[in-house]
Amino acid sequence: MSYELWYWDGIPGRGEFVRLALEAGGIAYRERVREPGTSANALIEDMQSPRKHPPFAPPYLVADGMTLAQTANILLFLGEKHGLAPASLEGRLWVNQLQLTIADMVTEAHDTHHPISANDYYEDQKDEAARRARSFREERIPKFLAYFERALTGRTTWLAGGKRWTYVDLSLFHLVDGLLYAFPKRMGTVASHYPNVMALHARVAVLPALQPYFDSGRRLPFGECIFRQYRELDAA
Amino acid sequence: MSYELWYWDGIPGRGEFVRLALEAGGIAYRERVREPGTSANALIEDMQSPRKHPPFAPPYLVADGMTLAQTANILLFLGEKHGLAPASLEGRLWVNQLQLTIADMVTEAHDTHHPISANDYYEDQKDEAARRARSFREERIPKFLAYFERALTGRTTWLAGGKRWTYVDLSLFHLVDGLLYAFPKRMGTVASHYPNVMALHARVAVLPALQPYFDSGRRLPFGECIFRQYRELDAA
Repeated sequence: MSYELWYWDGIPGRGEFVRLALEAGGIAYRERVREPGTSANALIEDMQSPRKHPPFAPPYLVADGMTLAQTANILLFLGEKHGLAPASLEGRLWVNQLQLTIADMVTEAHDTHHPISANDYYEDQKDEAARRARSFREERIPKFLAYFERALTGRTTWLAGGKRWTYVDLSLFHLVDGLLYAFPKRMGTVASHYPNVMALHARVAVLPALQPYFDSGRRLPFGECIFRQYRELDAA
Repeated sequence: MSYELWYWDGIPGRGEFVRLALEAGGIAYRERVREPGTSANALIEDMQSPRKHPPFAPPYLVADGMTLAQTANILLFLGEKHGLAPASLEGRLWVNQLQLTIADMVTEAHDTHHPISANDYYEDQKDEAARRARSFREERIPKFLAYFERALTGRTTWLAGGKRWTYVDLSLFHLVDGLLYAFPKRMGTVASHYPNVMALHARVAVLPALQPYFDSGRRLPFGECIFRQYRELDAA
């Protein structure tokens, strides 16, 4: 039986970190909400159905009779079970640590356009968004990217240091992809300070294991999601 | 050789989640920054020193020759190695999933007083803080606590369902403790809706394994940290 991934339809969101690992790992999965004939309420109904280990929010993966939520937790499982993470304990904890740091930056990227409440419209928090985005661009983007640059220094190819990619390489690729989409001017200014990060982004983009997915048309555009192209929130 | 925990001196912060697990687990550790004679710059210097797996931010634990950062990642390691988590894969992933959901709520609690930038003073973002805190009180506190209540339903004693506590029970205790400190009026209104959560909080407070720590005077007060007692951010 294949895995079932549950996430909001129509946006890449946090679900995309899981999709990239499943796709690059050649792991069979279904997304019921994206199949024809599935009710628009299917995700809400499934999430509220009684289960031993309920999720707080999507994405969640139904796998081997378990329901696993929280992006980094799903990837921890996939990494270990499908060889998408180092075999050693130290290597697996390192990859998990990096994934959690990526998750922190993803949350902060989201909060640039929703600094007050995720339930309110962007239009109702534009002034606050402008202030938060400035702090994100000037303080947080350099701090996080300098860290990932440091994490890659001396490894040069992959974050875990081995000969093969691990799931966290795919995640850093997607994070950088989102930053390039949402903050093209700022990234234009700072990207050259992080050559190893940008090289890793380029390396994953041409990873043979991901080409069938990229070519399939199934990879959703960023759109109105975590990473948004609000020009007023970007600056060099 | 005992473990070394590194965190900012003088505040409980995210370090407290690790301390509670170490203390309740009877695991020997040192906190160099809290030892007499340690330089005020010791943490910054240690964090910047060359190492195989650098941390992005404290807390981090030096253990068995490894440097482990990200609170949930440190707890994952301690849980598995010292029996502070379930023995089964499913149980360990469930506890990790809950820990990550607690971490999300901790970040949101912090952002109630720093919604624009952690580097700016609270006084420079008070208006935005008032708006964000209202959303946190009215939307997020009920949503998160209802989830933890659901997670406990049918288990009644501990979040992992077993006969013994796991590290995530200690973390939920500390989270609720912080909410009671920072949002006493709001918690006074809603706590009765989450009887299992509040019972777990009371159960951990009297856990025999934690009493020596609580009696030692080493547990730091909340103060100016993630959970702050700004009366203007609280309401029934």
